[in-house]
Amino acid sequence: MDNPSNSTTSSSTALEPAIVDERPWEKLTELADLGNAAPLVEFIENLTASDQALALSRLDEEHRKTVLTTLPAEDAVELLRHLSEIQAADLVESLSIDQAAAIVQEMPSDEQADLLGDLDEVQAGEIIDAFPRDEAIAVRELFAYSDDVAGGLLVREILRFDHSTKVADVINTLSENAEEFRDYDVQYAYLTDAEQRLVGVLPMRNLLFARRTDPVADIMIADPLSLRDTTPLDELIDFFDSHHFLGVPVVDAEGKLLGVVHRNAVDYEATRAAESDFLKSQGIIGGEELRTMPLMQRAKRRLSWLSINVVLNIGAAGVIALYQDTLEKVIALAVFLPIISDMSGCSGNQAVAVSMRELSLGLVRPTEMARVWLKEVTVGLVNGAALGLLVAIVAVVWDGNMYLGLVVGVALFANTLIAVSIGGTVPLLLKRLGFDPAVASGPLLTTVTDMCGFFLVLGLATVMLERLVH
Amino acid sequence: MDNPSNSTTSSSTALEPAIVDERPWEKLTELADLGNAAPLVEFIENLTASDQALALSRLDEEHRKTVLTTLPAEDAVELLRHLSEIQAADLVESLSIDQAAAIVQEMPSDEQADLLGDLDEVQAGEIIDAFPRDEAIAVRELFAYSDDVAGGLLVREILRFDHSTKVADVINTLSENAEEFRDYDVQYAYLTDAEQRLVGVLPMRNLLFARRTDPVADIMIADPLSLRDTTPLDELIDFFDSHHFLGVPVVDAEGKLLGVVHRNAVDYEATRAAESDFLKSQGIIGGEELRTMPLMQRAKRRLSWLSINVVLNIGAAGVIALYQDTLEKVIALAVFLPIISDMSGCSGNQAVAVSMRELSLGLVRPTEMARVWLKEVTVGLVNGAALGLLVAIVAVVWDGNMYLGLVVGVALFANTLIAVSIGGTVPLLLKRLGFDPAVASGPLLTTVTDMCGFFLVLGLATVMLERLVH
Repeated sequence: MDNPSNSTTSSSTALEPAIVDERPWEKLTELADLGNAAPLVEFIENLTASDQALALSRLDEEHRKTVLTTLPAEDAVELLRHLSEIQAADLVESLSIDQAAAIVQEMPSDEQADLLGDLDEVQAGEIIDAFPRDEAIAVRELFAYSDDVAGGLLVREILRFDHSTKVADVINTLSENAEEFRDYDVQYAYLTDAEQRLVGVLPMRNLLFARRTDPVADIMIADPLSLRDTTPLDELIDFFDSHHFLGVPVVDAEGKLLGVVHRNAVDYEATRAAESDFLKSQGIIGGEELRTMPLMQRAKRRLSWLSINVVLNIGAAGVIALYQDTLEKVIALAVFLPIISDMSGCSGNQAVAVSMRELSLGLVRPTEMARVWLKEVTVGLVNGAALGLLVAIVAVVWDGNMYLGLVVGVALFANTLIAVSIGGTVPLLLKRLGFDPAVASGPLLTTVTDMCGFFLVLGLATVMLERLVH
Repeated sequence: MDNPSNSTTSSSTALEPAIVDERPWEKLTELADLGNAAPLVEFIENLTASDQALALSRLDEEHRKTVLTTLPAEDAVELLRHLSEIQAADLVESLSIDQAAAIVQEMPSDEQADLLGDLDEVQAGEIIDAFPRDEAIAVRELFAYSDDVAGGLLVREILRFDHSTKVADVINTLSENAEEFRDYDVQYAYLTDAEQRLVGVLPMRNLLFARRTDPVADIMIADPLSLRDTTPLDELIDFFDSHHFLGVPVVDAEGKLLGVVHRNAVDYEATRAAESDFLKSQGIIGGEELRTMPLMQRAKRRLSWLSINVVLNIGAAGVIALYQDTLEKVIALAVFLPIISDMSGCSGNQAVAVSMRELSLGLVRPTEMARVWLKEVTVGLVNGAALGLLVAIVAVVWDGNMYLGLVVGVALFANTLIAVSIGGTVPLLLKRLGFDPAVASGPLLTTVTDMCGFFLVLGLATVMLERLVH
């Protein structure tokens, strides 16, 4: 997991170079068996983040639990942070409620919300109940938000003062609590009124030049920008694109200050979204898969996706069955059917990718299907002609029959047009209907283009049958 | 473009709500024709980042140039920042060298390097030459780095002092240059010795508690972590995963301080990498495509990829040609060939996606092909059996011939094993050989699995020919 909250360069052990260990999980197992915290902490701190994830993922569950429970809570948090979310969740789920609670409590609130969200409802609830009462209430509040809105991404660990506080008192609080504030964003303090409403932001450096007897309100930026707790991720991404802030304060309906969403938390969610688009486009749907997961879980997840596809495929192939007589007479057609179907699929996927890219960049609106269609048809005409011609030539050279070339060439040309038209517009349509374009575009596209492709080849062939049979 | 450098909440106009304008490019054209900076600045500042990109991308080139050259340089930089890199580069390329230089000079050094890297070599050189001499030298230095190493991602705009400077002098410098430093990361100052070598990092808040007559060296963190200018992106990602710094100082071979790489710059590059994997997996290879690009450019880019595929496809289809006689006798087989080929492709792509994911998480090493293969074969056995059985049943039900079911079922089962084996291991192999797994895995996989699939179906059919013909 990523940690959006800031930190200082005072972590010392990190100064030692990372150990390059070909099989770090073996050493880790040994240390876990010894069950002694100190050497475990030291060994882990000297591994790179990805080696930590690698080593831990290669341990059996018992050893994983031992490692996590042997480490001091803050080191355990540190370790979890370097795992993929799904690994971290699995690991915490394997712990007892008390063990889990002890660790989760050490996390900054945005990571808490993230992790708890990945656990099963019941267990998450039990873990929260194990917190001190007031803490539990606060966590429940954030936990109620989904992790793609501001409320689910914010950190509560911020410097907040009443706007009437004196400069001197702020400076003293800072020096007295230097340790506690170490991991905070110490670039700004957030100032509230008696009703906890956000009234100003205080750039810490202003403290350097201020008279110590003044109230901080005198040196604060009044009416700072803030966002509602319900602001969705894409608006957050847009916000941080438009403003170079490291964080933005988040308020509820009454204007009460809830916390701060950091740019890093938003960047992190954006990366996850892009990664999941890639996985989905390749047919990994039910959440990410790691090869350390149990076999049946991995097989089932993949199969659920494959079985939809095979059914769609069989449907498309049905078209071929309809034209068996034609095929029987002109067997050469069978050679070109897979080519037509694969190539149309490729052209369509390109159009899908460009549409999803333009949607994510905001360069096209889901309503502009006509515009996209026109742009795609022009490309389709050019590429369809080129591909059709190429395949036609191959057919003529190989089979010696002009008309075979004509049939497959025209079919591929026409089907390329169909493929890019569907591929370009379907993502916009799905987006408008609230579906995930990354998941649905692929199979939908392939099936339709396959069907059309087979229809075109075999239909055309049936029409010109006499010309095709030698 | 993203701006990794920090900033303050003191930007005022941003306080006004963003205008929701269905066709912002029309208003933008009007304002461009008026050629008056003030209203242009105001209109643009009130658009969201994505609406700015949308509006600008819909203008004709002339108007785009007018907008960019009418805006004050710092606003032009602001605007460019919200465009995708490719849009920004196109736009700057359309300007005169002087116009471009005036704008590029206003950018923080990491964005300068990014943009210049996207321009054509010659023009980039001319723009740099138009800078003041010392500036030009510094820019050339960074420009020499590729943008996936620390040297290409760092900002030179940092607070740096000699370690012998007095606390009071630092505080004065800060207050005197408050304006200039506004966009800097003011969380830390970086301290160097007489040879410009990095000797310490100064958390600004330490200034709050320090005696003003002390040298800053007394309150600095000595021997801070730093990275070489040559550190590659994946190590940077790993570094920021392991440390919660907002930035890390970058030094050259002599230990001289070059600048700071900010976490945001690294997060941004990571997102780009994930996005480009998705685009590549869908067959958008030659850099990202926007539908605002000229038709032939878009067609050519896509075609270069398609033509490779069609050739590979034709090669695979050749296998079918070899077995025409069998196919002629058992025409029903033609119905199942596309199913076998599509389904194997799907299974293979899933394995590719999981391998690339595990590679990027560091959960598998490129050398662990045997491990991955075993993990994939097990899944392949389960899913291959399920899919094979399903298709077999369909064949029997539809054709009434047991043996047809046997042939297609066994073929799909075996080919699924082949597909996941290739799909799982090829990305590791490509990574080891230094190729880009996202680009090469797809077509390679499809061709080989198609060939094998056709061989299996038609080969088996040929063996059991008597049983298959009615």
